Amino acid sequence: MVNIAIVIGAGSSIGGSLINELARDESVDRIVAVGRTAYPEHAEHSDKVSYLRSDYSEESISAVCTELEPGKGSITRLIICNGILHTDEISPEKRLEDISASSMREILNVNTVIPLLWLAKLAPLLKSKSTCRVAILSARVGSIEDNRTGGWYSYRASKAALNMLIKTAAIELRRRAPNVKLIAFHPGTTDTRLSKPFQRSVPEGKLFTPEFVAKALLGLLRTLEPDTEQEFFDWDGQPVPW
Amino acid sequence: MVNIAIVIGAGSSIGGSLINELARDESVDRIVAVGRTAYPEHAEHSDKVSYLRSDYSEESISAVCTELEPGKGSITRLIICNGILHTDEISPEKRLEDISASSMREILNVNTVIPLLWLAKLAPLLKSKSTCRVAILSARVGSIEDNRTGGWYSYRASKAALNMLIKTAAIELRRRAPNVKLIAFHPGTTDTRLSKPFQRSVPEGKLFTPEFVAKALLGLLRTLEPDTEQEFFDWDGQPVPW
Repeated sequence: MVNIAIVIGAGSSIGGSLINELARDESVDRIVAVGRTAYPEHAEHSDKVSYLRSDYSEESISAVCTELEPGKGSITRLIICNGILHTDEISPEKRLEDISASSMREILNVNTVIPLLWLAKLAPLLKSKSTCRVAILSARVGSIEDNRTGGWYSYRASKAALNMLIKTAAIELRRRAPNVKLIAFHPGTTDTRLSKPFQRSVPEGKLFTPEFVAKALLGLLRTLEPDTEQEFFDWDGQPVPW
Repeated sequence: MVNIAIVIGAGSSIGGSLINELARDESVDRIVAVGRTAYPEHAEHSDKVSYLRSDYSEESISAVCTELEPGKGSITRLIICNGILHTDEISPEKRLEDISASSMREILNVNTVIPLLWLAKLAPLLKSKSTCRVAILSARVGSIEDNRTGGWYSYRASKAALNMLIKTAAIELRRRAPNVKLIAFHPGTTDTRLSKPFQRSVPEGKLFTPEFVAKALLGLLRTLEPDTEQEFFDWDGQPVPW
């Protein structure tokens, strides 16, 4: 059987490292990487990798999903890692005065709506007999219970909403596709474009490389069984509260 | 001192009942009601009530906030109760196949972005010496921890995101405006347009009138002190998990 892994958001540093790690994994036969730009700068070239381009439109996502029909293969990994914290125009809000409705809508679209749209469109392809582990990149700052410091309104809200969608989808998949295990994953602070402006406050030894995070996530996924009900894990395999 | 109460989303059944209850409250001198349509159909007329119209645009919200400068008065209550579960075009999703990006964006805008925008723009007016209690209508189905049944993706996500924003704002307000107590409020299932299509599954005695809910919320607000850290309550004054 052909084992297929899919990485959505392949242009990110973590996406690139995931592709590299999966390419080295002998149990993975084919990797489908999906990104918005040219071949992911952080990924090495490998014969195992097929690269597809897609933007954030529903049409473009649907078009890629049609191409992704696994045929005789079996999707055993799906990792969705698109997300933004800041752009040239948007910075995380420090206080209520910084809130802009249009920025919040944009963050909610990229971090919440788009990942779920990918999951919804790909879910029908995950119903094989093999176990399929699915991870969507979330963040501990998206934990409402864990929020002690405030700030970062839109990003926090987008990840809390994403966590709710993941929990809701996990409930549905447990009923309808019992071979699928879906989790939200907190990568820790990783040395990427996303965290660059905020790395000063990271304690020593807690700024991870994308390679470390990719290995941590893939290692964690290997251990997760579909019938476990915990759905939010960090890089260390520890549960994170909602 | 003139005590002012503000009700945003005055056109809803709960909004109308809040206006009526506040109008009967002798400690409240003036009520400012804000809605999208003509004078709220569910509210009785009262000399205490000023009615302002606003739609969901940032400009219109800002314009109302400028008019709302309390002058010598003091805002002691602010209740934000706009929200949608379904429209003529949108029904709550039963399963992943029902997900539409545009519907999810609309629900997130009305239930998440708009309430926070109101709060952000009104926050500077809440810094008087009197205690100001602020409630934003949320819902228990927005509790990630409490989610056992799945479904209703967009609505659940919008309320989880709203809850995160409320928690984040509560942390900020505790530091910057220690006279303000902000909570998320779960009204229970109330006999309104919002719940109408879903009332069949409500246990006997658990379908509340808008009057009951308005009294419950105003009674709860009376008892809450700014320094308590719990931020999500139901109609019975009980804490709801995040």
